[in-house]
Amino acid sequence: MSDLSSFFEPKTVAVAGSLGKLAFGGQVVRNNLLNFGYSGRVYLVNPSYDEVQGSKVYPTIKDIPETPDLAVVITPARTVPSIINDCVDKGVKSVIIGADGFAERGEEGAKLQREIVSIAKRGQIHLVGPNTIGTVNSMNGLVTATYPMDYTKIRRGNIALIAQTGLIGPQAFPYGEWGVGVSKICDLGNKCDVNESDLLEYLVEDPQTKVIAMHLEDIKEGQRFLEIAKMVTLRKPVLILKPGRTKESKKALISHTGSLLGNQKVCEAAFRQAGVISLSTFDEIFDVAKAFSCQPLPRGNRLGVITYTGGGGIMAIDAAAESGLTLAQFSSSTEEELSKIYPALKGNPSDVGPLFTQDIFPYKEITEIILNDRNVDCVLGVIYTGQLLSPEFYLPILNEVKKPEGKPVVFWIYGTNREMMDRACFKLEENGYPVYQHIGAAIRALGAMYQYKERILKEE
Amino acid sequence: MSDLSSFFEPKTVAVAGSLGKLAFGGQVVRNNLLNFGYSGRVYLVNPSYDEVQGSKVYPTIKDIPETPDLAVVITPARTVPSIINDCVDKGVKSVIIGADGFAERGEEGAKLQREIVSIAKRGQIHLVGPNTIGTVNSMNGLVTATYPMDYTKIRRGNIALIAQTGLIGPQAFPYGEWGVGVSKICDLGNKCDVNESDLLEYLVEDPQTKVIAMHLEDIKEGQRFLEIAKMVTLRKPVLILKPGRTKESKKALISHTGSLLGNQKVCEAAFRQAGVISLSTFDEIFDVAKAFSCQPLPRGNRLGVITYTGGGGIMAIDAAAESGLTLAQFSSSTEEELSKIYPALKGNPSDVGPLFTQDIFPYKEITEIILNDRNVDCVLGVIYTGQLLSPEFYLPILNEVKKPEGKPVVFWIYGTNREMMDRACFKLEENGYPVYQHIGAAIRALGAMYQYKERILKEE
Repeated sequence: MSDLSSFFEPKTVAVAGSLGKLAFGGQVVRNNLLNFGYSGRVYLVNPSYDEVQGSKVYPTIKDIPETPDLAVVITPARTVPSIINDCVDKGVKSVIIGADGFAERGEEGAKLQREIVSIAKRGQIHLVGPNTIGTVNSMNGLVTATYPMDYTKIRRGNIALIAQTGLIGPQAFPYGEWGVGVSKICDLGNKCDVNESDLLEYLVEDPQTKVIAMHLEDIKEGQRFLEIAKMVTLRKPVLILKPGRTKESKKALISHTGSLLGNQKVCEAAFRQAGVISLSTFDEIFDVAKAFSCQPLPRGNRLGVITYTGGGGIMAIDAAAESGLTLAQFSSSTEEELSKIYPALKGNPSDVGPLFTQDIFPYKEITEIILNDRNVDCVLGVIYTGQLLSPEFYLPILNEVKKPEGKPVVFWIYGTNREMMDRACFKLEENGYPVYQHIGAAIRALGAMYQYKERILKEE
Repeated sequence: MSDLSSFFEPKTVAVAGSLGKLAFGGQVVRNNLLNFGYSGRVYLVNPSYDEVQGSKVYPTIKDIPETPDLAVVITPARTVPSIINDCVDKGVKSVIIGADGFAERGEEGAKLQREIVSIAKRGQIHLVGPNTIGTVNSMNGLVTATYPMDYTKIRRGNIALIAQTGLIGPQAFPYGEWGVGVSKICDLGNKCDVNESDLLEYLVEDPQTKVIAMHLEDIKEGQRFLEIAKMVTLRKPVLILKPGRTKESKKALISHTGSLLGNQKVCEAAFRQAGVISLSTFDEIFDVAKAFSCQPLPRGNRLGVITYTGGGGIMAIDAAAESGLTLAQFSSSTEEELSKIYPALKGNPSDVGPLFTQDIFPYKEITEIILNDRNVDCVLGVIYTGQLLSPEFYLPILNEVKKPEGKPVVFWIYGTNREMMDRACFKLEENGYPVYQHIGAAIRALGAMYQYKERILKEE
């Protein structure tokens, strides 16, 4: 597979699709490119129009005055083969087929899909899709999704999101409101050509991408994928959610073919061997990725817990044990220092609950002592916000705390006011502190980081 | 154990505690009672004041001109025994000990705790706590929590929340912002007297309570608890999260005594026998409870899924299989009717994705057809909100849909704008449709309802 850069960094994009509708189609793709600030040239293609909103419309891709780096095709399925033919003639090398009505709709669609693959092969064209919302590049404003959106900026960051579903797309999540950012997004769709292995090869070299999170319903070239994954995971963490783990969902996935990793256990064993981190739920795609995105890998698995309640501490220990972490035994100097602040603080989990209503709440001192304990490899903190502690309480403290290198910190948030929690969450994440709504999710992220650290160590 | 009604429905409350601080103590409890609209009489008790904010302060509980139904004590631990003595002399029968510094702080505190228990016994007083934020009754504005809060109204509803942690309290969650409501809350604290069995006995008779959700770190009177639970679950669902399920957290729970259900497996088996639904995470306390709160029990476990994406459908099937549900096989008339609307709709999960960008989106028709299929026992719907579908799109449709009896519906929400999602969520839940941020949580709730239905059927 040649380089996929045209799918993410095209200088020119041709958009072939309906121009009459405002909810779906070519006009929407064009508006998204404009709204998200795509800086390249965009050509509209549709035989029924001469001009739309002051822009010239070309009857076919062949009529465009230059060869576009990328074509996005969102036309009725039956018209796609001839458009791919035009791409061959024009010398276009990369095509996203947003149109649906292919292999996902039974044998007739599968036949049409084979037809476009064979045409594309003739022209050495690479296809993403069909049945995809395509790609996103937060750096250049490339957003090929065919749905109108109520925001216009995707936060730039280092998380690459690859999925076999449009659910990953910017029409489904408020990527503009997040404190952590994405580098690239790709919905693989039916994977008639470009697949997960190709993306891994591309993303491992992508300087904007630090962590790769994937949702894969099947794996197209099992052996190749595992070989590539094994190499990629030495350089970047790869997180994979593989749905279809039950008999019933496998039956529902029957239309997908070529899966070399049908058995879930075999699949998970193969992932483990390749150093891939297996995820259990869709939310973990974001939850685990964001810890990798902004925190260093831990040196070991000994967890320090700062809690506002004894009950939260116990739940943290359960989650830790279930995520491959163990509760750190604080060093005697830590116990001594914490005792000096308040006797009940000294154990791990350290319960700051009795202190936070006092006039001076030594949150910074406590965090600093625990973070710097040589027996602590990673820390779960709690962000409580409400009338007593404003969302603005934490960030200055966290920024001031003396932090040793190589100790990830994640936070669990709760409180009495959603708006305040959202504000705290955003501010902290924007500054590199991942925050979770659920204590288990926070600790699971640390567990995944430790799992990855072990994978790296094994190879060294 | 006598009736616990004084802990939830007192006509008069004495508050003994610090009156100088605004962040914690007696003054805060008094303000909470005022702010949340508690309609009974409140007496302040503190020997250092004559008057606070225009209210008379009594030096001791004995000086109050009537016998209060409930006393709330938030004074330094060492002063508590003499206050309980005063309660004995005064004839007070119910005391919440908000103070900490008892059994949770080692042997000295445990001794103090034994002392107050023995004094209370002499006066036939029942104690909640110590080390508790006490009780909440949404009907009469009783809020004994010792923390200031930035809201003043708890939504009234039918969920009772019992926990062995203050994490359940109104200072930790925005119970005013929720679309579903609570009836009673009780933080059991150290459980020196009133325990989970007593609460079950009280709540099963409470007309405001429909579902009882509990967080229990240990179980005080194992045999009694199981006998009561077995009886209660015939009338109301009982959901229990039992943390301490790993070796490490058990060690941390070592200070708790009297647990007859130490082994997690034994505990889960006992729960199952008693018809209790075991929860896995703290979030499930709310997530599972809210489905019971507002939806009918399903007749069977056959799930119908309405999805906007194929990927979401597959994940729904995984979650269903893992929650004891099975994918419904639509009847032929359903398949026919759905096909008439759009051919790709006919299977289960039914994917409305290709339709929602069209001028007319037949959401109502599709939902109605699937809900009324005789092969479908329960339904997962998806709420997508963003520029294309406003938060206000769904409710009128759901209210208009012809709904058969005894088919619960839950929703998974996602979209591009948090504010819009919050709005949709609130509106729908206020109207009895439980909405979840995570697909797994939505389906887990349906699974729990089916589990409970089976328990009821077994006894009939």
